[in-house]
Amino acid sequence: MTKRIRIIGIGMGDPRHLTGEAVEALRTVDVFLVADKGERSADLVAARQAICDSAIPRERRYRFVEVTDPQRGPDAGLSPAAYGQGVRDWHAARVDAYADVLAGLGPEEGTVGFLVWGDPAFYDSTIRVVDALSERLDLEHDVIPGISAPQLLAARHRVPLNRIGGSIHVTTGRRLLDEYDPSLGDVVVMLDGHLTCRDLVDRHPELELLWGAYLGSPDELLVRGPLGEVIDEVERLRVAARGRHGWVLDTYLLRQPD
Amino acid sequence: MTKRIRIIGIGMGDPRHLTGEAVEALRTVDVFLVADKGERSADLVAARQAICDSAIPRERRYRFVEVTDPQRGPDAGLSPAAYGQGVRDWHAARVDAYADVLAGLGPEEGTVGFLVWGDPAFYDSTIRVVDALSERLDLEHDVIPGISAPQLLAARHRVPLNRIGGSIHVTTGRRLLDEYDPSLGDVVVMLDGHLTCRDLVDRHPELELLWGAYLGSPDELLVRGPLGEVIDEVERLRVAARGRHGWVLDTYLLRQPD
Ligand SMILES: C[S@@+](CC[C@H](N)C(=O)[O-])C[C@H]1O[C@@H](n2cnc3c(N)ncnc32)[C@H](O)[C@@H]1O
Ligand SMILES: C[S@@+](CC[C@H](N)C(=O)[O-])C[C@H]1O[C@@H](n2cnc3c(N)ncnc32)[C@H](O)[C@@H]1O
Repeated sequence: MTKRIRIIGIGMGDPRHLTGEAVEALRTVDVFLVADKGERSADLVAARQAICDSAIPRERRYRFVEVTDPQRGPDAGLSPAAYGQGVRDWHAARVDAYADVLAGLGPEEGTVGFLVWGDPAFYDSTIRVVDALSERLDLEHDVIPGISAPQLLAARHRVPLNRIGGSIHVTTGRRLLDEYDPSLGDVVVMLDGHLTCRDLVDRHPELELLWGAYLGSPDELLVRGPLGEVIDEVERLRVAARGRHGWVLDTYLLRQPD
Repeated sequence: MTKRIRIIGIGMGDPRHLTGEAVEALRTVDVFLVADKGERSADLVAARQAICDSAIPRERRYRFVEVTDPQRGPDAGLSPAAYGQGVRDWHAARVDAYADVLAGLGPEEGTVGFLVWGDPAFYDSTIRVVDALSERLDLEHDVIPGISAPQLLAARHRVPLNRIGGSIHVTTGRRLLDEYDPSLGDVVVMLDGHLTCRDLVDRHPELELLWGAYLGSPDELLVRGPLGEVIDEVERLRVAARGRHGWVLDTYLLRQPD
């Protein structure tokens, strides 16, 4: 029997970021498959539950199945090719784990949901995992977009992501130093565990930094100013917040001053 | 008295793209300021009304005020600098028009809304207009993100916008030929009235095109395939659709094959 898979973008944690389409989709799901991420669990599990509680009527029955994420080695120092291969191997192991769970579901559990933070289109592997699952199992799937971290960053700072007629470049902490050039337009950086923009201060002191962490949560942090002037404050806030939470997720925009 | 301005991203036309936050915001608005765009009006006015009808309870009173958009000269052939200046002059004229309307509102009309298609962070001038208005009038404002065209394009094609660890570059039809390089990562093109990617076929026949028009509407069109193979079909669909509707809005993703 064909299982229906729904890949649902749930926004950045605040249930009010859900679209009506996401709410409708959540209500059709029998089983949510969620990756067990270890350390960050407690906060994320609570936020996830709040999302489902807000969207799904009490009488509707569904369950969560936690799928243990395969171990992944450290990325530091890997070449881009080795990094890519590492990610692909890890995806393959995840696909095996999910395929096992799907194969074990009962016939009454026909609709399976993946909750994706933000939007599945931005730096998320769920679509690739489901594509790989579709090659092995009888599945149909759809994707529901959600509000992503860069969008919430822009909304909170009340700026557009582009200048008039200009481009927007979204990249990762790993790529920033190699890639950065003013001709890219306004640059959004995600997946940066180390505030890599610090290493741009000497080359581009003129850049404006618009930074946000824990966007969409009650602990949201925002800083805006010339890169060279605000970087120390951002670093301090980041270290302190990581101390309190055990983790930090942040996104930032770098742009030439007007 | 301070007026409250709400810049509300309403997604791509389907009321189910509204977030809960956008719905809440719509319900607080006394007066919506909308640009009168001339020719495209009929469809857009209907879609706008459907959004408000779906979100705002019948008993809540609000009104639309149409603000006539200042005339804008043709862009074709302008240098980037002249193009930028043209857009800035046009913005200034719009700001004057909006300031007049705001100054004429009664004290009971304390909350003013701007409906923005998609997300205000992507190629939309509302935030800049409101920033300029804030310098003249006593205003406070917030921005509510919405589902943008690139996100809906990705969701419909069921692809992420980035490759593993790669970048995403969002640009305009005007910039595409000068900018395109595979090192940019996956490239999203907006504001392209002429399907400029046709001029990349010779240089980059290997590119994959993922195209979408009228996204979020019942007339949605999707095409995917190698650029050189599908470009004629896309061109045909575009011309035929423009004939039917009088206008076409499309967005596409260009990416290297896996
Ligand atoms: C694996 S990606 C997922 C992105 C997500 N799909 C989206 O649409 O934003 C994780 C990255 O998103 C950003 N991010 C996620 N949650 C965030 C938050 N609450 N505040 C700021 N940035 C966040 C960070 O850059 C983080 O490294
Ligand atoms: C002025 S910009 C506004 C973008 C909008 N703020 C967003 O978040 O997507 C207009 C451009 O958005 C894209 N667009 C808007 N509506 C669209 C639709 N229904 N389908 C496809 N593309 C659309 C087109 O590239 C169009 O040229």
